[in-house]
Amino acid sequence: MKNKGLSLILVIVMLVTAFVTGFSNVSAQAEAALPKYIFLFIGDGMSYPQFQTASDYLGQLEQTGDILTGGIPLSFMTFPVAGSATTFDSTSFAPDSASTATSISTGHKTYSGVINMDESKTIAEKLKKQLGYKIGIISSVNLNHATPAAFYAHQASRNNYYEIGQELIASEFDYFAGGGLKSVTGREKDQASLYDLAAEAGYKVAMTNAEAEATSASGEKVLIIGEKLADSDALSYHIDLAEGEWSLADYTRKGIEVVNNETGFFMMVEGGKIDWACHANDAGATIQDTIAMDEAIQVASEFAANHPEKTLILVTGDHETGGLTIGFAGTNYDTYLQNIASQKISYARFDSDFIAGYFENKTPFIDAMKDVQELFGLVLPVNADSAAQPTLVLTNYEVSLLEQAYELTLAGGVGKRESYQEKLMYGGYTPFTVTVTHVLNNKSGINFASYAHTGLPVAVFAKGAGQYLFKGYYDNTEIYAKLAELTGVN
Amino acid sequence: MKNKGLSLILVIVMLVTAFVTGFSNVSAQAEAALPKYIFLFIGDGMSYPQFQTASDYLGQLEQTGDILTGGIPLSFMTFPVAGSATTFDSTSFAPDSASTATSISTGHKTYSGVINMDESKTIAEKLKKQLGYKIGIISSVNLNHATPAAFYAHQASRNNYYEIGQELIASEFDYFAGGGLKSVTGREKDQASLYDLAAEAGYKVAMTNAEAEATSASGEKVLIIGEKLADSDALSYHIDLAEGEWSLADYTRKGIEVVNNETGFFMMVEGGKIDWACHANDAGATIQDTIAMDEAIQVASEFAANHPEKTLILVTGDHETGGLTIGFAGTNYDTYLQNIASQKISYARFDSDFIAGYFENKTPFIDAMKDVQELFGLVLPVNADSAAQPTLVLTNYEVSLLEQAYELTLAGGVGKRESYQEKLMYGGYTPFTVTVTHVLNNKSGINFASYAHTGLPVAVFAKGAGQYLFKGYYDNTEIYAKLAELTGVN
Repeated sequence: MKNKGLSLILVIVMLVTAFVTGFSNVSAQAEAALPKYIFLFIGDGMSYPQFQTASDYLGQLEQTGDILTGGIPLSFMTFPVAGSATTFDSTSFAPDSASTATSISTGHKTYSGVINMDESKTIAEKLKKQLGYKIGIISSVNLNHATPAAFYAHQASRNNYYEIGQELIASEFDYFAGGGLKSVTGREKDQASLYDLAAEAGYKVAMTNAEAEATSASGEKVLIIGEKLADSDALSYHIDLAEGEWSLADYTRKGIEVVNNETGFFMMVEGGKIDWACHANDAGATIQDTIAMDEAIQVASEFAANHPEKTLILVTGDHETGGLTIGFAGTNYDTYLQNIASQKISYARFDSDFIAGYFENKTPFIDAMKDVQELFGLVLPVNADSAAQPTLVLTNYEVSLLEQAYELTLAGGVGKRESYQEKLMYGGYTPFTVTVTHVLNNKSGINFASYAHTGLPVAVFAKGAGQYLFKGYYDNTEIYAKLAELTGVN
Repeated sequence: MKNKGLSLILVIVMLVTAFVTGFSNVSAQAEAALPKYIFLFIGDGMSYPQFQTASDYLGQLEQTGDILTGGIPLSFMTFPVAGSATTFDSTSFAPDSASTATSISTGHKTYSGVINMDESKTIAEKLKKQLGYKIGIISSVNLNHATPAAFYAHQASRNNYYEIGQELIASEFDYFAGGGLKSVTGREKDQASLYDLAAEAGYKVAMTNAEAEATSASGEKVLIIGEKLADSDALSYHIDLAEGEWSLADYTRKGIEVVNNETGFFMMVEGGKIDWACHANDAGATIQDTIAMDEAIQVASEFAANHPEKTLILVTGDHETGGLTIGFAGTNYDTYLQNIASQKISYARFDSDFIAGYFENKTPFIDAMKDVQELFGLVLPVNADSAAQPTLVLTNYEVSLLEQAYELTLAGGVGKRESYQEKLMYGGYTPFTVTVTHVLNNKSGINFASYAHTGLPVAVFAKGAGQYLFKGYYDNTEIYAKLAELTGVN
């Protein structure tokens, strides 16, 4: 009897212990839960400056009185977990997208320009093979560009576009959508079209919105290319988006339809033109493409709301581009971000739709400036009437910068300039175009420090299953390690 | 007997429950513990770019072969908790130190230039009054400058230096140490010396290292002013520190001696010259002052190691300054941060010890460039021998920039230039000096986007009691709110 009583007590003690520890570990278990549905959003070239500028721009647009009340956060900026990651690669502290996306997708550092040249498979390949997850890859730039390629390709050079396209097809990933493939018929234009090869390999290849709309979750693999392509066959900048043109959010919504299944999925969505806009020092296009990526993130959040314990959404960047800064010597401690709203088109659309004509017709500066006033809000002093915002009327110094750049542009047309000084002043861009965006940026209290990638750490926002693993300050290779830890792939 | 058995079982259940929940809550309790010893380090003008550049610089110095293996983290970059805070004030997204430090110290937003003009007391005043904590305030710039002032003063303008000095004395805080007081005898130099007033009010005023050394924890209030003052009566830039000159770490060590007591203490340590160096676009001085702040943080960490459950160390910035960027158009994707090691003195010391003489003696450019080679490593092509590092030999374009700036400097001496274009090129700084640092920065793969404050969020690192409250992405006013929550002041 005594022994029986003791046994009973022991059993109860064990049960209570299990019950209590069970309860107290509920949150820890939820955090450690295997995410069945994983979204990885990568803003190419996006770090703190890009989303904070977008947020502050929205805030300054809403400002009515004298008192500034701050930015309006993009949806991911309110995610429960916010960490940071360092981005250096084996070559430099100002790394490129091939090496940084390789670090995120495989956990390995590599040289600039290299995509997954060690033996290891990417997180996407592992989730497909080891867990049977469906895989989606979306990018606003070319689908065989460095960042998307880092999830399915293995190449010594990011410029092996045709070979990367062949690997895209061989990946058998379930959903690809975004900008057109580069080098579709190879370097010498003498190879079979990658689109034909994809169709032969069983991909439903959709080149129009109607065809894209018709793809479904019938189990067939899908490759959607934007109906209307822009600079370098990428999707349009969000600021240039025409009525009915699909945005990153639309491709994400369709992607969820295609890859959603009971086993699980992994979807990488790249906001690739944030980087391109920052290279060109176009703050207006940068802000709109960052907002466009947030709209795609909101689509993922809607999905997550229906599967809160099984979904993980990560939002990060591969590196910062441009050294984008809220602050400029000429405006000192003041900001006029609302001026950016005067910009109607991207630098790239201005190049293609206007500069080419100026060059051909030798358009007088004063006429080109009428377009600039219409499209970017910048007003020549002679044209300033009382309705013009004083912060958008050009100073004599700014007019002289624009005139000098216009002269160079009429002499050489769109694109590259060669001298070191011109490289510093205009990057590789059309002198007049980049001077227009520089002047508008500066009059808004914004400046860029470079035309290339920079060494700033990137932010990592996380929401959902396993979110807490992503807090803190760590290296970008840890993003892979944390995903592998959560999902158990190796 | 049956009832007794049941009672016994119930008691055991309760004990086991208490024991098990107790155990599982240990870490939660430790996190929620009241920190008795609080260190708040504020790197003025310090955000991600400043400490990441310092870390990457140290890493690139150690690089031996072709493969870059990353930065060497400063001690605080490995703290267990890393968050971020937004910094806008009521005037602008590029805020100043008065308003941002006010937000940190009181939880209120205010206009640029204003220090605590609402009714509320600062976190330091509350900890002193409500909990009896001793208070220490340390700054490498003037002790009545905006950031330290935000912890004890209440003024409509940060420029009311004499009145702020009077508030310093009236605060009865236990320890002040750092740069000399500005406006010691008032705007018209006709008031009683603030130092005399401090002594009369019971402060032990130490103006030499020997006097500083002799101060102790005897209960008397201490005001230590650096024995050797530099530009604007601040402490020297760390890069200029002479043998035996006290660094921020020394003032921190002494401060702990003075304020350590059984009840608790709060110590704010400002790395104020990080901001000044970034204003002047001097990357070398910025890096060294950031490292100097980390050395002071290590002193706090040594103290924390002996009181791990009772100490909280916070490291943050008030705003970013300069738009410091790892990356430059001219060096594209490459970084040569080791070049910065060639810089031997700060821009300010170069101004005071060299430029003044060039101006007076009309020194030829070629002679000035001998000093520049000695002090900044930059080599004129004519002087380049085989030992010169190719990345430090000047290009013709760089020589032309230096010549142009030198001509302007010989014409006008140290300091301000007035035209808009010169303001953009040289900020408010001596043209030759700022061009020397610009060229060295650029040849290292570094660039600045502004001479003023910027809108980048700041990092918040935390270690110790209550650390987990500081994770995530929040507004700088939350730093006050979290400290108030932890300590229970209101």
